[in-house]
Amino acid sequence: MKNIAPEILEQNVVAIFNAMGATPEHSALVAGLLVKSELSGYGSHGVGRVRQYVNGIKSGILDPVAVPEVVMDRPSVARVDGKRAFGQVVARKAMETAIAKARESGLAMVGAFNSNHVGRLTDYVKLAAENDLVALMMCNGGGPNVAAHGARSKVLGTNPIAFAVPSREGRTMVMDFATSAVTEGNLRVFSNRGVRLDEKVVMDQDGHFTDDPNAFFAGGATVPIGRHKGSALSGIVEIMAGIFTGARCSSFDGYVDGNGIMIKVMQPDLFRPRSEFDDDIELFYQKVTGADRMNGVDRIYFPGEPELENVATYRQEGVQLDDATWEALTGIARECQVDFG
Amino acid sequence: MKNIAPEILEQNVVAIFNAMGATPEHSALVAGLLVKSELSGYGSHGVGRVRQYVNGIKSGILDPVAVPEVVMDRPSVARVDGKRAFGQVVARKAMETAIAKARESGLAMVGAFNSNHVGRLTDYVKLAAENDLVALMMCNGGGPNVAAHGARSKVLGTNPIAFAVPSREGRTMVMDFATSAVTEGNLRVFSNRGVRLDEKVVMDQDGHFTDDPNAFFAGGATVPIGRHKGSALSGIVEIMAGIFTGARCSSFDGYVDGNGIMIKVMQPDLFRPRSEFDDDIELFYQKVTGADRMNGVDRIYFPGEPELENVATYRQEGVQLDDATWEALTGIARECQVDFG
Repeated sequence: MKNIAPEILEQNVVAIFNAMGATPEHSALVAGLLVKSELSGYGSHGVGRVRQYVNGIKSGILDPVAVPEVVMDRPSVARVDGKRAFGQVVARKAMETAIAKARESGLAMVGAFNSNHVGRLTDYVKLAAENDLVALMMCNGGGPNVAAHGARSKVLGTNPIAFAVPSREGRTMVMDFATSAVTEGNLRVFSNRGVRLDEKVVMDQDGHFTDDPNAFFAGGATVPIGRHKGSALSGIVEIMAGIFTGARCSSFDGYVDGNGIMIKVMQPDLFRPRSEFDDDIELFYQKVTGADRMNGVDRIYFPGEPELENVATYRQEGVQLDDATWEALTGIARECQVDFG
Repeated sequence: MKNIAPEILEQNVVAIFNAMGATPEHSALVAGLLVKSELSGYGSHGVGRVRQYVNGIKSGILDPVAVPEVVMDRPSVARVDGKRAFGQVVARKAMETAIAKARESGLAMVGAFNSNHVGRLTDYVKLAAENDLVALMMCNGGGPNVAAHGARSKVLGTNPIAFAVPSREGRTMVMDFATSAVTEGNLRVFSNRGVRLDEKVVMDQDGHFTDDPNAFFAGGATVPIGRHKGSALSGIVEIMAGIFTGARCSSFDGYVDGNGIMIKVMQPDLFRPRSEFDDDIELFYQKVTGADRMNGVDRIYFPGEPELENVATYRQEGVQLDDATWEALTGIARECQVDFG
């Protein structure tokens, strides 16, 4: 394991992206979010992604200076052409567009296509909540990794869904989860760390469940959460984020790797007075976190809270990178002729 | 088991609701949808619900002649006060309102409160697809049945999500699933039929998983699909269908049993030309249903297809009711002094 201060790690990643020709502003945004994922305890969306982005720049599917453009604009609806920019730049633009529209009209639906990998959705929906708005976001793509219910070949992406709501108490209330039982990023982390799987979440290429995370990378597949239910949910994400927006699906011929993005943003007082909304959000928080606990559970966290605790810890103690991730990163630095700080 | 022709069963249920003072139009709608659930193979949302609705009328939480009212009306947004009518009447009104708005403005978001149990969401989202629109629907309430992740006491409802999309090929493409691993309705069916559970989906009142469906009715709880992921998803449904709309949550003091309703309806060509949308929907269907199958799987169904096959079968062979359901129904008929046909 390599322990590194988050500021140093971020500077190093910025230097790599700058060396690859990215706009300094884009390098800063992307490096900042990758390191934030590490701090949050999500190595799956952390600096291990630098290899993917550098490869994307080299192969031409990621344009590190491109600026996304709003190509359809109506009072409550917009469509963003990501221009194959960094996914973080595209998702940020889509969310900012949705926030501006929701502020005006109460409700906004914004879709984006031609985007690369956006990272954790948390970072975008949280932006809406910080602007006192409710946000729902779904992304397809980045696969196919996941077999639909009954299948052994991969058709679906990891297809995450995220949601954030403002709270009078200033609480972080952010849901952000994959609709697959396990993500490719997590399987990579398990593989690097030699962890075996304790649930039926990976099939080998013959369609048999296995506890070996490496089976996924050898032609295997993951499965959706909740069997046919999660398979349907993942299908909704493919259709809304992929087909509806025009980003298309990772199982389609000619698909270019990345994420389709669908965002919905709403004013919290669209349907009822703000004080009633706020009261009930607080009540719901209390009901969930104050429920009777299962044996062995010390505290019931609301979604988003464990990550906050991780940030506080790792900011102080430094980011822990496994050897494979660290070696890959230093290798990229050498390729780019960047000196690591 | 009792085998009964669907037409006769529907007439009998209509007679019960009429005897309870319902508007004939409401009796016909509700009885029709309950029998359709039986035909679809969803006994959990079938005529076993008559007891619940009759009790609702008796206790005053269900007004069998009430007509829902649109109480807030903007170009893309409406709020419906269900007036404690039959949930089916409220959900139908909300969906019809959303369909009319989406036709005008491309996008509609409609919420409803003061609704009783709406039954299967399939029936409403399908209406949008038949009107050449895309629909997403979520309902909270009807509980609490489900323990949030880490808890053993119940805070969440079954909280279903449904989605329908029109298809050029005239395919039924309807997703409709609970966000809980098992529904109260299904547990009732398992209990009536003496079925044991083969997955960890029910905890007894002490928070231990059990294979006995009756443990749920003795103070136990069900769990969300996909552990913390489904728990977050169910939380989204509580907030959007319950708190946002003002229907509130089943864990709150003073909550009146029923469903909070949140509907989003969109024109399929809002973001891209209709022919491209239709092509990709067909392609997605082919990719999912044409994937390599797991051992023992003869055919990969798209969501909504197995139910269609059930309807064809049961319409011909008659509806199969378990003894407990049939005895409950004849008992209600006697109470209402209705002669069963």
